[in-house]
Amino acid sequence: MLRFHHIVRVSLFASKASTFPLTSVSLSTSIPKRTTFALRSQMTSFSSSSSSSSSKLLFRQLFEKESSTYTYLLADASHPDKPALLIDPVDRTVDRDLSLIQELGLKLVYAMNTHVHADHVTGTGLIKSKVPGVKSIISKASGATADLFVEPGDKVHFGDLFLEVRATPGHTLGCVTYVTGDASDQPQPRMAFTGDALLIRGCGRTDFQGGSSEQLYKSIFTLPKDTFIYPAHDYKGFSVSTVGEEMQYNPRLTKDEETFKNIMANLNLSYPKMIDVAVPANLVCGVQSKDNQHHISLIQSPNTLSHISTHM
Amino acid sequence: MLRFHHIVRVSLFASKASTFPLTSVSLSTSIPKRTTFALRSQMTSFSSSSSSSSSKLLFRQLFEKESSTYTYLLADASHPDKPALLIDPVDRTVDRDLSLIQELGLKLVYAMNTHVHADHVTGTGLIKSKVPGVKSIISKASGATADLFVEPGDKVHFGDLFLEVRATPGHTLGCVTYVTGDASDQPQPRMAFTGDALLIRGCGRTDFQGGSSEQLYKSIFTLPKDTFIYPAHDYKGFSVSTVGEEMQYNPRLTKDEETFKNIMANLNLSYPKMIDVAVPANLVCGVQSKDNQHHISLIQSPNTLSHISTHM
Repeated sequence: MLRFHHIVRVSLFASKASTFPLTSVSLSTSIPKRTTFALRSQMTSFSSSSSSSSSKLLFRQLFEKESSTYTYLLADASHPDKPALLIDPVDRTVDRDLSLIQELGLKLVYAMNTHVHADHVTGTGLIKSKVPGVKSIISKASGATADLFVEPGDKVHFGDLFLEVRATPGHTLGCVTYVTGDASDQPQPRMAFTGDALLIRGCGRTDFQGGSSEQLYKSIFTLPKDTFIYPAHDYKGFSVSTVGEEMQYNPRLTKDEETFKNIMANLNLSYPKMIDVAVPANLVCGVQSKDNQHHISLIQSPNTLSHISTHM
Repeated sequence: MLRFHHIVRVSLFASKASTFPLTSVSLSTSIPKRTTFALRSQMTSFSSSSSSSSSKLLFRQLFEKESSTYTYLLADASHPDKPALLIDPVDRTVDRDLSLIQELGLKLVYAMNTHVHADHVTGTGLIKSKVPGVKSIISKASGATADLFVEPGDKVHFGDLFLEVRATPGHTLGCVTYVTGDASDQPQPRMAFTGDALLIRGCGRTDFQGGSSEQLYKSIFTLPKDTFIYPAHDYKGFSVSTVGEEMQYNPRLTKDEETFKNIMANLNLSYPKMIDVAVPANLVCGVQSKDNQHHISLIQSPNTLSHISTHM
């Protein structure tokens, strides 16, 4: 499989990328910023406050009721190709998401996960089978298969917009948060897609691989206070929060590290009902094949995969 | 009870309104527009594209899972008092909503309904009992009690922001849609809170009092195509749409009026399980008292209230 830096080269210099000349996964310093394109006023949720020449983000928050999962659709509506990506799609709502993408006239480029989910099966594999050309993305540290692997500091470009990758381990070792770009032509305020690392007034359980409130502070709470927090789940009907709100009101992460560890160690949560199905599937984009089974057997992370052997 | 035009006078000229000098329910031509106030960058979801001197809307979409109801929190975060309103609050999530309002430092002024709901009990009465000074608002045509009644064309001001009232009957006779203001210092694109009149790729059932696709077209589909549609419910996990999308893809409202009527007449929906509890309660802000029962006995709308006599 192509490694990350190879993908950068392909997308920048090879004819293979001609369909999406402005869409690529790239290292933060390697992609020249494009500045000329047409504005489209329709179907945009956030407009950059910088000027009339800025990109337009089309943004949709989608909910899967059974697992209370949020899937996020982002697209550069200003770009002629309207390149789009999905963050944390769920298998059972793939058809809904793809119908919406088609109706909005978007070109789906990436199907991304913040981590290997334990409570639902990712839709990335199903999406790839239904929409040729879509690339799946997950963090290298996740141990899962995907078309592209990202590491902290990387940027994922779609049109003239991009997401930055931040490491937010704790819920799983490979958890990352995707944050909209830190530039004047990117959406303001910034938006952080935190997966299960940081939830609204809460955080993901940390009894799989151990928690790290310190890393959360470093990776999330150093963002501007008005940065929006978009988690992978909410169980109380909240849809969004901000860094400032969570710094002030998150009942777990406002505690010192020792107290946080004690809280997380004493949650007495039940065994996740979907984990035995979801984790093996999500390590291979949600779709299992002979090749995938071979891949799983080679993975060397016993903490993550303790349940797999009995189900493969 | 004070009638609408009296409220305008009180809020403009009487000392009673001094707590919120910029917050009032007003007729569209009666309130002079204020233009000077401080900007606050935090906790805002939409910024007007006009200039740096525009108001800042704080916006939150909140979900009640059992009835799949969306409650909307809007506030003028630029105003020193941060006046706020709730659209379609649900009784069972009142504490969640009020906690959020407190944490965000907002001053709740209005608890509004788009119509008399049949599938959940409104939270407006409970909110009024918990937060003294909050005024409930509903359309005059609803036949329900409230502190303030609005009619099509009215404006509801909160700080320097305002909502316009549009008639969208069909689901119930008294259904209204609240739309953010049509002015350069108001949120862009505009946002329409459609209640059950227009849902995402659907519409509310019309077997209570008969439907009116014609009225929906006139009241909603004449708004700019990029106007956001925020419904009172969604059952498929969508959170927002646009006028343009619904004009193009709504499977019911893209039909001619005769076809629409046939569709609505043949939905074969089951009797709403909450209607016998919800409608009587919602006619009196969700909280029943001796006074309320007296009010209900005086209401002259047999179509709306056919179930009440057996339950009051």
